[in-house]
Amino acid sequence: MARYRAVFRCFSGCPGEYPLTQALYRCPQCDGLLEVSHDIEALRERSASAWIKLFEDRWMRTQWPYGSGVWGKREWVAPEVPDDSIVSTGEGGTNIYWAERLGREIGVPDLWVKLCGNSHTGSFKDLGMTVLVSVVRQAIAEGTLATRVLCCASTGDTSASLAAYGAAAGLPVAVLLPRGRVSTAQLVQPLAHGARVFALETDFDGCMEVVKELSRRRLVYLANSMNPLRIEGQKTVALEIVQQFDWESPDWVILPSGNLGNAAALHAGFE
Amino acid sequence: MARYRAVFRCFSGCPGEYPLTQALYRCPQCDGLLEVSHDIEALRERSASAWIKLFEDRWMRTQWPYGSGVWGKREWVAPEVPDDSIVSTGEGGTNIYWAERLGREIGVPDLWVKLCGNSHTGSFKDLGMTVLVSVVRQAIAEGTLATRVLCCASTGDTSASLAAYGAAAGLPVAVLLPRGRVSTAQLVQPLAHGARVFALETDFDGCMEVVKELSRRRLVYLANSMNPLRIEGQKTVALEIVQQFDWESPDWVILPSGNLGNAAALHAGFE
Repeated sequence: MARYRAVFRCFSGCPGEYPLTQALYRCPQCDGLLEVSHDIEALRERSASAWIKLFEDRWMRTQWPYGSGVWGKREWVAPEVPDDSIVSTGEGGTNIYWAERLGREIGVPDLWVKLCGNSHTGSFKDLGMTVLVSVVRQAIAEGTLATRVLCCASTGDTSASLAAYGAAAGLPVAVLLPRGRVSTAQLVQPLAHGARVFALETDFDGCMEVVKELSRRRLVYLANSMNPLRIEGQKTVALEIVQQFDWESPDWVILPSGNLGNAAALHAGFE
Repeated sequence: MARYRAVFRCFSGCPGEYPLTQALYRCPQCDGLLEVSHDIEALRERSASAWIKLFEDRWMRTQWPYGSGVWGKREWVAPEVPDDSIVSTGEGGTNIYWAERLGREIGVPDLWVKLCGNSHTGSFKDLGMTVLVSVVRQAIAEGTLATRVLCCASTGDTSASLAAYGAAAGLPVAVLLPRGRVSTAQLVQPLAHGARVFALETDFDGCMEVVKELSRRRLVYLANSMNPLRIEGQKTVALEIVQQFDWESPDWVILPSGNLGNAAALHAGFE
């Protein structure tokens, strides 16, 4: 494991690299997005067929942490997280369905659906959250983090996932949401997992501003999707699709999009 | 595959055996429950270590139908169902969690939770329904079934699971439920999967009587849990628990119970 490494770099190309265990969410120079950058040369030293064999051997095994589709590909995700920092609920490894009848109806005979939401909290967000919370745990173990509080603005899935992984890690979670705009069903998971839920008199963007300010003051660790660690977990969707097609890429992938996090994640995975 | 076989037998020991593809839900002699009886001698011809190797090699593979934890153990479940009759959503293979903190609180240090509900419709009932609907498809292919309509009485999970597997199989599903006693959330899955939902002016037992009468008249195939095919799928929970503990049995299993179907299923699996 030690030979592989990944760091934060500026998405727009500013010089400089930063450890993944640093609480950093934007480029210190241009304030743009960060991305996780892997040592591709080191990864290339292992042949494609050797990677395939390794990933197949680990696929959904009971041996910790390989019951997780994300950590079965750990060298490509977050190579420096030790086993005992990993917080996993066995995410990934979701079924890919041949949508035979729908494909026939719309004239796409070879149509498949990857059901990423078949996961512990019912959302694909678990794929990214396992990476984020595991890296936080590693940072806490290494003594490099000023806070233990995980925080996000959310109206649903993100808070459910963060609360579940925070609870599994034994870390406090704070969720900020716009008062009166979140359904009871969406509140159940954060509350059941013991998160502190704050209803603010603002909209989602207003909550997000508060989370950013709290993280700037180092009172919380920011778990929203501007944190590039989540992309690293979500990119395993692309790796799994290729694996499930016997290591061939599909011609097209169709994704729902909000802030295009999944588009970025699947691009990173296919690349 | 051809060397293994299973039949229905009377649970109370009346003589006689019946093919799994027969629409039979009670012993024709005593009207008691039926069970699926395997040819244990044939199964014993393969050594324990050879079974373990086979089951490990298949565990959650992408090769059809071994993405399903149920069909990965097909010889022990429904050995005569051919691949092209199998209706699967990749059920089983669910995570088993070490409930470290809860165990500490209640004085059970080695406490684990098998999350069987992390499945396509959100319920462990998928484990049994894949077997039932696959056997029905086999029976239809063999021309031995008088009806194609799958039917159950249900106030929730059973109807969701039956509707999903019926839709995947291209078979009509009828759900009978007590009017006014089912929540909208529980109605969403059967309706979304195109099942015919009938609200009757009675309680669950009243609905069950109607399903039984319809199945007696051979108008529908009965999919409630008195159909022993469901037990065969659900018993893989026991097999998976043992597998996930590196082929050792736990000391105790604690189960919620309604009609004790899961108790019967896990007993069958451990046995």
